[in-house]
Amino acid sequence: MVKINQNYFALKESYLFSTTARKIREYQAANPDKPVIKMGIGDVTKPLTPSVVKALEKASAEMGVAETFRGYGDEQGYAFLRNAIVDYYKKIGNVTLEADEIFVADGAKSDIANFTDLFSNDNVIVIPDPVYPVYLDSNMMLGRKIVYIEGNEENGFLPMPYEGLEGDIVYLCSPNNPTGAVYTREQLKVWVDFAIANNMLLFFDAAYEAFIADKTLPRSIYEVEGARKCAVEFCSLSKTAGFTGTRCGYTVVPKDIEIEGRSLNKMWLRRQTTKFNGTSYIVQRGAEAVFGDEGIRDCYANIEYYKENARIITKALDEVGVWYTGGLNSPYVWLKCGMDSWEFFDLLLNDAQVAGTPGSGFGKCGEGYFRLTAFNTHENTIEAMERIKKIFKK
Amino acid sequence: MVKINQNYFALKESYLFSTTARKIREYQAANPDKPVIKMGIGDVTKPLTPSVVKALEKASAEMGVAETFRGYGDEQGYAFLRNAIVDYYKKIGNVTLEADEIFVADGAKSDIANFTDLFSNDNVIVIPDPVYPVYLDSNMMLGRKIVYIEGNEENGFLPMPYEGLEGDIVYLCSPNNPTGAVYTREQLKVWVDFAIANNMLLFFDAAYEAFIADKTLPRSIYEVEGARKCAVEFCSLSKTAGFTGTRCGYTVVPKDIEIEGRSLNKMWLRRQTTKFNGTSYIVQRGAEAVFGDEGIRDCYANIEYYKENARIITKALDEVGVWYTGGLNSPYVWLKCGMDSWEFFDLLLNDAQVAGTPGSGFGKCGEGYFRLTAFNTHENTIEAMERIKKIFKK
Repeated sequence: MVKINQNYFALKESYLFSTTARKIREYQAANPDKPVIKMGIGDVTKPLTPSVVKALEKASAEMGVAETFRGYGDEQGYAFLRNAIVDYYKKIGNVTLEADEIFVADGAKSDIANFTDLFSNDNVIVIPDPVYPVYLDSNMMLGRKIVYIEGNEENGFLPMPYEGLEGDIVYLCSPNNPTGAVYTREQLKVWVDFAIANNMLLFFDAAYEAFIADKTLPRSIYEVEGARKCAVEFCSLSKTAGFTGTRCGYTVVPKDIEIEGRSLNKMWLRRQTTKFNGTSYIVQRGAEAVFGDEGIRDCYANIEYYKENARIITKALDEVGVWYTGGLNSPYVWLKCGMDSWEFFDLLLNDAQVAGTPGSGFGKCGEGYFRLTAFNTHENTIEAMERIKKIFKK
Repeated sequence: MVKINQNYFALKESYLFSTTARKIREYQAANPDKPVIKMGIGDVTKPLTPSVVKALEKASAEMGVAETFRGYGDEQGYAFLRNAIVDYYKKIGNVTLEADEIFVADGAKSDIANFTDLFSNDNVIVIPDPVYPVYLDSNMMLGRKIVYIEGNEENGFLPMPYEGLEGDIVYLCSPNNPTGAVYTREQLKVWVDFAIANNMLLFFDAAYEAFIADKTLPRSIYEVEGARKCAVEFCSLSKTAGFTGTRCGYTVVPKDIEIEGRSLNKMWLRRQTTKFNGTSYIVQRGAEAVFGDEGIRDCYANIEYYKENARIITKALDEVGVWYTGGLNSPYVWLKCGMDSWEFFDLLLNDAQVAGTPGSGFGKCGEGYFRLTAFNTHENTIEAMERIKKIFKK
């Protein structure tokens, strides 16, 4: 008698973004004359940059010619891309990595969720609240005990470790999704020291690192001394280069991490060679182009475009005196809505035709807050904020 | 104190194909003047067909233009591709599926390994011996109890259920990797009836279905009555269309499968929406082209090319009187080597400069057997078989 994984039934019935998407779809179907401005899901809108498209086209053509055709590649990614990522880390944070500490995959979401495979289910998982739902859901699917660390107005939604915090694996996300808050170097150093002292691992989600403009803020946890001994870093080209539909991410597993005498790097290699067959050659060539001079220049111009939207959002909130975090070094603005999050979602959708994401969808500490994203056009962002200001003035 | 998944250490240290690849690399480095003909790993050699390349290039170009750019797609795949797969099933086996029973991913290996997520670890897993190592390794990583069903000369390496066979989930692979043997419709009907009678699930790996020329043999398990109630089917474009480096596969989870009152289809949807972000839009457009008239014509011409190689292999083995299975409806030929499999691997590599795969790498019943693949060129296959014939004549 086949037995299913009962842990699935502890999960909420549908994934947050499926629920908001359904609500928007239903509203739009009922009100076809009132176009909704979407500032909910963190999806980019700018097309891929010319050098990336050129690389994708070239690789596609290569696949049609016997001499340049590629079959199975290394599961952990092509050397050309892993080397480009090594160079990128040097540039952004003077971080030195080895190419075989980098694992290329189809995106940070897959890697973050699949990395749970390497650990026993009796680990206690420490998860910030609010945060990106995948950390929680992927561990709930394994029936693991979860401990929450609370983000709130007082700590600027950047929870810190404290005496008596018990746990084995800690998820950190900076710049944070959904709050846009960014840990300082000093704060991350406290986390790294705490993890080492308590034999904990840190899973550091750096998917939004490219949005950090403030040079004093760390873009990689490896900018912090000691992190190579206790931290795995997940990153993605989704937000750096608009790869949400093209699909490419990477995970850094330093060779310094040993647990019970075992190399975590080798364990992940074993997991990936067994359960994954590598990312498309074509996509990896596109990703390589992201890290070229032209790629970086153009991708960062797109990021600048989104950050101008973030400024439009924060400026409007300042005008109506609404409390928020994020926006400065992040595509997200996290605002205090002054009511139940889903109620505010419905109000914005129905009265202003603007879709955001209810804060409570990211955890109970998100209740009363709301996330807006900077990935729409300038025009739509300006229009949306005019409408939102009216709501707050009511 | 973080605790690792101890089950990883019950696994053999390296994955089969990493070991053979290393041995070949070392031989080639020591003997640069003696080029090795590779008939080991199941990797295609023919480039992608023109209509697929055209679709990949077109999709790449679309990604560079705001109006046609695509961000996040549905995790389960674009409707255009799922509909094309529905049509393909009608064509190949008169099988009727609904589009939301099909889940597109980056390959069958990922899906087969990840599908284990949905089940409790106290299920007993039934695995043919010999077989593709991913079934075993992905379940060993979860510490599950494994029961083997033995393939041998007597049953033509097509093990059948028997009174007293205990287990909950059964993996079947037809055309089989590594043996090339194909279950008949009658044999699969026995498996389906047995699964339903014993509340078992069948995981059917159809990755090589496109190689089946014999119209009496089933290409999908859904050609067998009752399979919709008990079978999940995994398939891939790797061998059908040369996508080993392009990466696309699909999994069929019929809505008729309910376990403990839960829909398996909905569970997989929950798993994929939480732990996966969809396959690259560009790759999905390439995959769509595979199922067009031109795509099917050209892909099947490539398959015919490989099958001519299989005929070259089996003809040579017939000449020297070596027992084998496969080759007729499969790219694999499984031969009885008359000695230890790794010994034969070394002998072929050193004395004939031909690389194959040791049968024992696929399970203990593979000991004494050896796998050759039909994915090389005609010229190389002819040359390799001349050399192999000499070895057998010694």
